[in-house]
Amino acid sequence: MHPATGLPVVAMVGGGQLSRMTHQAAVALGQSLRVLATGSTESAALVAADVQLGDHRDLDALLRLAEGATVLTFDHEHVPTGHLQTLVDAGHRVAPGPGALVHAQDKLVLRRALAAAGEPQPAWAEVADADAVAAFAGRTGWPVVLKTPRGGYDGRGVFVVHDREQAEALVGQHGTLLAEERVAMVRELAVQVARSPFGQVALWPVVQTVQRDGVCNEVLVPAPDLDEDLSAAAQELAIRIADRLGVVGLLAVELFQTEQGVLVNELAMRPHNSGHWSIEGARTSQFEQHLRAVLDYPLGSTAMTAPVVVMANVLGGDAAEDDWAGPVLDERVHHFMAHWPDVKLHWYGKGQRRGRKLGHVTALGTDLAEVRARAVAAARYLADGVVDPAFAFPDGH
Amino acid sequence: MHPATGLPVVAMVGGGQLSRMTHQAAVALGQSLRVLATGSTESAALVAADVQLGDHRDLDALLRLAEGATVLTFDHEHVPTGHLQTLVDAGHRVAPGPGALVHAQDKLVLRRALAAAGEPQPAWAEVADADAVAAFAGRTGWPVVLKTPRGGYDGRGVFVVHDREQAEALVGQHGTLLAEERVAMVRELAVQVARSPFGQVALWPVVQTVQRDGVCNEVLVPAPDLDEDLSAAAQELAIRIADRLGVVGLLAVELFQTEQGVLVNELAMRPHNSGHWSIEGARTSQFEQHLRAVLDYPLGSTAMTAPVVVMANVLGGDAAEDDWAGPVLDERVHHFMAHWPDVKLHWYGKGQRRGRKLGHVTALGTDLAEVRARAVAAARYLADGVVDPAFAFPDGH
Repeated sequence: MHPATGLPVVAMVGGGQLSRMTHQAAVALGQSLRVLATGSTESAALVAADVQLGDHRDLDALLRLAEGATVLTFDHEHVPTGHLQTLVDAGHRVAPGPGALVHAQDKLVLRRALAAAGEPQPAWAEVADADAVAAFAGRTGWPVVLKTPRGGYDGRGVFVVHDREQAEALVGQHGTLLAEERVAMVRELAVQVARSPFGQVALWPVVQTVQRDGVCNEVLVPAPDLDEDLSAAAQELAIRIADRLGVVGLLAVELFQTEQGVLVNELAMRPHNSGHWSIEGARTSQFEQHLRAVLDYPLGSTAMTAPVVVMANVLGGDAAEDDWAGPVLDERVHHFMAHWPDVKLHWYGKGQRRGRKLGHVTALGTDLAEVRARAVAAARYLADGVVDPAFAFPDGH
Repeated sequence: MHPATGLPVVAMVGGGQLSRMTHQAAVALGQSLRVLATGSTESAALVAADVQLGDHRDLDALLRLAEGATVLTFDHEHVPTGHLQTLVDAGHRVAPGPGALVHAQDKLVLRRALAAAGEPQPAWAEVADADAVAAFAGRTGWPVVLKTPRGGYDGRGVFVVHDREQAEALVGQHGTLLAEERVAMVRELAVQVARSPFGQVALWPVVQTVQRDGVCNEVLVPAPDLDEDLSAAAQELAIRIADRLGVVGLLAVELFQTEQGVLVNELAMRPHNSGHWSIEGARTSQFEQHLRAVLDYPLGSTAMTAPVVVMANVLGGDAAEDDWAGPVLDERVHHFMAHWPDVKLHWYGKGQRRGRKLGHVTALGTDLAEVRARAVAAARYLADGVVDPAFAFPDGH
């Protein structure tokens, strides 16, 4: 408990935008998020009162962070599993616990667990040499998707190989890899579920995620034209996984939708890009819900606040280039607000770099095409300083 | 501009809950509010990264706060007007400026300005002795309301006197006072308007405020059963006042509704308790709008997100007593969340004291009686630890 407020203290490993937005949610609950950041200008470190500087691979830094905190949680999956076990053994509450989190840290561990549970997933194999990849391709056909089991995110650590030679180079470089069939997918979906230690779960509607170059670009809520049975099946799948793995906090289940149903792509056990829409779009945001869940507070209503919500990421674009002569950020924000008075901005305070997630915008309404056009145009303007006249004023205002 | 983010820095005088909630809004805009607090456990100091400790009556503290900030603004009206002028003369942007703010600081200055503008207000007089009060009562009848021109808030500095003797005691104690007729009012209303330096204004719907012992207890949005013409008149009145006084930022106009129309009670030039509902209830909250306005950013949409919104304050109640044996705060929050999964909590992190504003809750829906019952019951439970069975589950969940 915090001595001044009598309310719990949640410590979060990582100073990125997830931590930043979790702090915003903590403020409403009477709390202040304790943040472990690697530098004082990290996204969350710029806005939180209780910041410790240190590395998430440094056990001493983690022990200091946990000291006096009610529970320790994460804005990324990169803390060594052994360190987490040490924290638990020292009596600290860690949520999600190491036994659950490893399934979001290690893609091979996830594949084995899903196989043991009989849950739908792409054909896969653990491969340590090119022969094994070729044998796998003999069953599924080329190309094959090779993934590093640990450390990948936003498309990093994911490779599409078309023949034995490409496979050989990768295995030589990375060692043991996860091989997966390239799924003939209709689209990508995601389900967010929150689970408390008590076992209470709360679900938001199934969303469609739209990727560009392996990075999430847009999230459409609810996933348009999704069959009701398939939606229910995806949600039930997410609950089963959360229960079986003993997840505490937020779980995002990323799914491939195929003609036959859904297959599990990967998991994140924290607030996730596919849930940012919930800040304005749901009665309880994923950030508040994550805090509630890790504290074993009862979970909040996930009812949507509008029929259609679209979140669009602002990925570093032309404006991130050194020789760019367009309007500076503050000017772009100014024009963004003038053009789109009802689109909500979330800017992360990070340095601009091409392809980097710098912020996101959320639009709400009733007509998907209109709402999506508004969100995408606004995000593109913030990234590139370009107003596309076809998108700028889709609803005439 | 902040060196790490390239975005502006707003400095706010005062570390209370208004500053705390303004910081939350700043985070979304890529900013971090700079806060002048009198202590490190003040509401906003507990959650903001950029906190300076100092007194708002100390000119040096104000000058340090303004150094490097884009604009300086306020979470209360208590900064000496002379200090503000010194800041302006030193080249700092102050919003609202001293010439506007004095109308929220000094009730006599406000009465004179409204009289000069011909705006509707209660009958009033400046009184320096009991004879003057008695002469005023000869026109309006007893009782007479006496107010200290400066420093009052939440009912403090407001006295109802029933005869010459009572008036004499007060004038002897306080010196020059504002005398006002006791208005035969139907109810109290408030209008929030934001105004930018450019002169852009944005209005939210007229709200009804429900007071208890001079302190705002509930805000009903929109004001139920308000005649459309009267609503428009109240909004036009707020715009005229904002323009005439040159307000920059948020202006809350508190009104008495009478059988004949509306009369101006007083002004606040900052985010105000009557606008807390807008965090969830409007597309742009008063806190975000205040930041936009003082920065001369274009203003955001004030569209409501639900047909009916009710905000209820949590005022320190039984649980604030030393000998109270009921559930501690964390336990009350726990039960609050279990009972009311769709009521939103805003807890300010302040020490509990009877009558003090400790937090507020917001409920949204379609039926005023249901929404109001939900909000009031939730706020009462947080304050008193009492679940009133008649209120607990008005909608059956």
